[in-house]
This record gives sequence, C-alpha cells and structure tokens, in this order.
Amino acid sequence: MSVLIVGSIALDTVKTPVEEHANLLGGSASYAALGASFFSPVRLVGIVGDDFPEAEFAFWKERRIDAEGVQRVAGKTFHWSGEYAWDMNTRETRSVALNVFEHFRPELPSSYRETDFVLLANIAPALQAHVLDQMTRPRFIVADTMDLWIETTRTDLDALIPRVDLLILNDSEARELTKETSLIKAGRKIRKSGPKYVAIKKGEHGALLFGENEFFSCGAFPLEDIHDPTGAGDTFAGGMAGYLAAAERTPTFADLRRAIIYGSVLASFNVEAFSLERLRTLTMDEIRARYEMFKAMSAFEEIA
Amino acid sequence: MSVLIVGSIALDTVKTPVEEHANLLGGSASYAALGASFFSPVRLVGIVGDDFPEAEFAFWKERRIDAEGVQRVAGKTFHWSGEYAWDMNTRETRSVALNVFEHFRPELPSSYRETDFVLLANIAPALQAHVLDQMTRPRFIVADTMDLWIETTRTDLDALIPRVDLLILNDSEARELTKETSLIKAGRKIRKSGPKYVAIKKGEHGALLFGENEFFSCGAFPLEDIHDPTGAGDTFAGGMAGYLAAAERTPTFADLRRAIIYGSVLASFNVEAFSLERLRTLTMDEIRARYEMFKAMSAFEEIA
Repeated sequence: MSVLIVGSIALDTVKTPVEEHANLLGGSASYAALGASFFSPVRLVGIVGDDFPEAEFAFWKERRIDAEGVQRVAGKTFHWSGEYAWDMNTRETRSVALNVFEHFRPELPSSYRETDFVLLANIAPALQAHVLDQMTRPRFIVADTMDLWIETTRTDLDALIPRVDLLILNDSEARELTKETSLIKAGRKIRKSGPKYVAIKKGEHGALLFGENEFFSCGAFPLEDIHDPTGAGDTFAGGMAGYLAAAERTPTFADLRRAIIYGSVLASFNVEAFSLERLRTLTMDEIRARYEMFKAMSAFEEIA
Repeated sequence: MSVLIVGSIALDTVKTPVEEHANLLGGSASYAALGASFFSPVRLVGIVGDDFPEAEFAFWKERRIDAEGVQRVAGKTFHWSGEYAWDMNTRETRSVALNVFEHFRPELPSSYRETDFVLLANIAPALQAHVLDQMTRPRFIVADTMDLWIETTRTDLDALIPRVDLLILNDSEARELTKETSLIKAGRKIRKSGPKYVAIKKGEHGALLFGENEFFSCGAFPLEDIHDPTGAGDTFAGGMAGYLAAAERTPTFADLRRAIIYGSVLASFNVEAFSLERLRTLTMDEIRARYEMFKAMSAFEEIA
C-alpha cells in the first residue's frame, strides 16, 4: 500500500570533523522517501529548482517513488549547510537558503488525495496541515517535527498534533514541548494532547514508544563510527511509515514496535555514509540481517 | 550459593528538591547486599561505628545477610551528605566524613575465604583488591567503581580491572576511563583491557552489556517520579550479583542478560523511596511482576 510523504528536498553541504561534502541530496522528504521505499511504494510531495539533478527523478522511478507531486520550478533548490561537533552529537547550521522552498505550498495531484498512509516529514506544521486538508482522512497519519517549529510556529504545531496518529520527535524536543524533564512524563503528556501514539527518538540511546496503556523501549544499533548523522531521524520516520503501510491494516501496537525497529535499522545504515549514499546500495537482505541482530541484542528470554 | 559483598556502610543525609532526610542507612554495600539478598544469601564485609543502629544487624540476619564480616569499632560510622539538582539527574556531595572508614582494611572471616561469587561494590580499588587477595579465586567476580577512583587512584583501578569477570560502571565513567565519546567504543575498549564482560549503566536510558562477541542493550523501567536516586547503581550491581550466584554456575551471556534486567528491576524499586525503605518491604512477587513488564516493554516479536 502506498505511503504519501511530504517534506523538504534539499541540496546539503555537510562538514564533519573528518570530511566535508557539498551539494549532497538531502531534505527530510528525500531521506524519508528512500527509507520508506524499501517496504512500500511512495507518493512524494515537495519542490525543487532547476538546478536539481535529473538523475534523482530516474532513481526515484526505479525505487517505486512516484514524483508526480514534486514541483519543478525556476530558481534554486533549497540549500542547507551544517557542521557537526567533534563528538558528532551536536551540529550547527552554517547557512540556510530557502530558495524555491520559500513560497512552497504543497498541492496534491488528484491521484494522491486518497492515500491510506501519510508521513508528514519535517517541514512547517502549517504545510503539513495543508496536505491533510487536501486528503480524504487517511487510515494512519505519522508526523515528524523539530525544535524550530516548537519555537517559532507553536500555535500551528499545537493545531496539527491532535490530527495525527503517531507523532515522532526527539528527546530534547519532547522536553521542550512539554517542559517536563522526565521523558516518560513528556511522552505521556504529548500522547494525552491528541495523537494515539508518540515515538521519542534518543539517538545512541534508542527510542521510546507510548500508547494508551502500552509502552515500548529499544536501544540503538551499536555503531562504532558514524560518518554523517544527517537525515537519521527522517530515515527512521520513513522506515517506520513504509513498514506500517506495507502491513495494509490499521497499525496495532505490535506493528508499531516492529516499525520502530525497522526505522532504527534504516537509520543505522544511513549514518554509515554521507547523504543518502548508503541507502542507495542497501538491500532487503542487509535490512533483515540487522533486524535479526536487533532481536539478538534485545532478548533476555528464550536465548540458550 | 552465597555472594560475598564488600563496600561502604554509611549513614547518609540526602536532600532532594522536595525533601531532606538525615541519618539514613546508606553506603554501596548496604544497597548491594539488600539487593542481592532477594536471590542469594550474602556474606557482608564492611565497617561501622558505635553509633550504628543495632536494629540493622537484626534486619540483615532476617534477610540471610551474614554480618560476621562487618567490623564494629569505636567511633562514628562513615557519613555522606548529598543534594540532588531539580532534575534529579545530577547531585553534589555536600560533605563526607570518613570516620571509622578512614582506616578500614577489610579482613575476611575464614568462613568467607572460599565464596564462589563476589561483588566488589564501590570502594577504593586497593580495598577491593585486598579482599580478592584473601580469597581462593572465586568462580565469578563482579566489580563496581566510580569517577572518584578513575580520577584519584587510577593505577590501583587499572591493576584491579583485569582481575574481575564483570566490570560495572556508568556512562560518564566509561567515557572518562577510555577518553572515547562512543559508549560502544568505550565498552569494547574496557572489555579488551581485561574483564570478560562490561556493563554500562545509563540511568534513564537503561544499560549496555559487552561480551567478547556478544552485545545486549535494554531500556530502563519507565518511572515518572523518582524520590531518591541514591544507591540505584549499588542496588543494580547487588541484584545482578545475587541473581548470578543463585544460578550456581559460571554465568553465561544469557544469565548476564537476565541479571541486568533483575538489577534494573531492583534499582527501579529502590529509587521510589528514600534510602533502602522500598527494598525493605519489597517482595519477590513484585520483582517478578516488574520483570514481566520489562519483557513486555522490550519485545517486538511474538507479541500478538
């Protein structure tokens, strides 16, 4: 079953303590779409300029990513530049050029309006809401967000949250949104504000998932070296949404547990190389093998 | 099978943003012994002054904690006073009075010298080593440590580490010991320096366990309110050691996985009240119930 994904499509310049690369494919929707495409066909919504490489459209087509919803307009593609600190845990935005993204207003092709699964990848909550406004109520809506929207467009975000089924955010964003120090209190408080489920990403510490009377906790895949953390959260969200759409039913809590593991698996591959390079060559066999490793590292019963 | 536990026995004054209590039973060995006693008989080694409450000896006896190795000498018991920050995640030591602990030199009763399982709870590594020197090589040695010993008695600590089977430390200590930012690199590096296994405690983020070719990761039990974090790490270590001793065999990696969960369960109860109060009334049924909740919150397969 298809999943509709809206978000940013960007050309990134990324500097780590070891390397720097310019004009890499980036943006929340690029990572999320490729992550989701391992499990489900994708309907992509976004905007690019006339400097955007044609080859990406060919690549998307090959990967069951329908780009009918990607507007191609005159001007430059959205550009983000960031630099990671020595420990790869914190990053600083060096520059943002919105370019064609500045006046982006996502308009859905009529063929997209009835899509059962939706991922509102990280963009302004008003744009996320505008996508939902054009759709017959999807069976399951996942939304990702970030600190920027908590700080600058809080009213829009508060209006969006009750409309989604699963809200994904990271630990510091959950604390910022709720003013709670405890992630357990924060997760439960956000859930009570509307979404059926809340997933809190904790980077190297894994993720938490909150349901009405259910709770799930998992670690992160043990990686020694991270080459580029950019897009890890977007890939996680994309992997989750793609996996859920593939199940072709209203997700149960058990589906969401496995979706979190698949999201974590995809994110763990993504950070092994710059941009989307690792995801381009990744195979389902590799994904399944790492999923099995997750099982082995999490189990404490039924292991001889 | 008995577990020998050596460490500090203290009277604590603890201040949280909400409450303050004085002259509470504390010390690494007190927490560890009570934690372990749910699974195995304990042989306790420590020192107390003449101000130490007689009632504790009666309580220990009732709990299968043999106090023959606890020296009672003239003078005051070791006293520690600490204050927790508003978020309960950081604490400051307000005062330390070593008192009778200053010249403590653990001497084992002859009945203790052959004990299969040993927990060297958090005290100076030279004292931990002195205990081992008096014993026939135990089947399994667990040691806990802290930042203080990394900073002040590094040579002693480096000499101790290769002598133990399982080293337990927390995330910041693992980073400090190895100068590695990645906990995965840190855990593997420490393991290569000698111990067969390394457990890294991450507080609200759970724990990691490193073996030669094996890895285990678990979350923490989801608690909304923490009343007193004092002794959580000691209780964790005690619960682990007690569980391993009860199995009466050289621990396998699978035993260690379950030991980590039992240690986490005990620590999660411990922080629900000041001092050892919660552990005093805790029952095996409650422990088993929370262990089952850990299973439910960690599973992503075989859940309908």
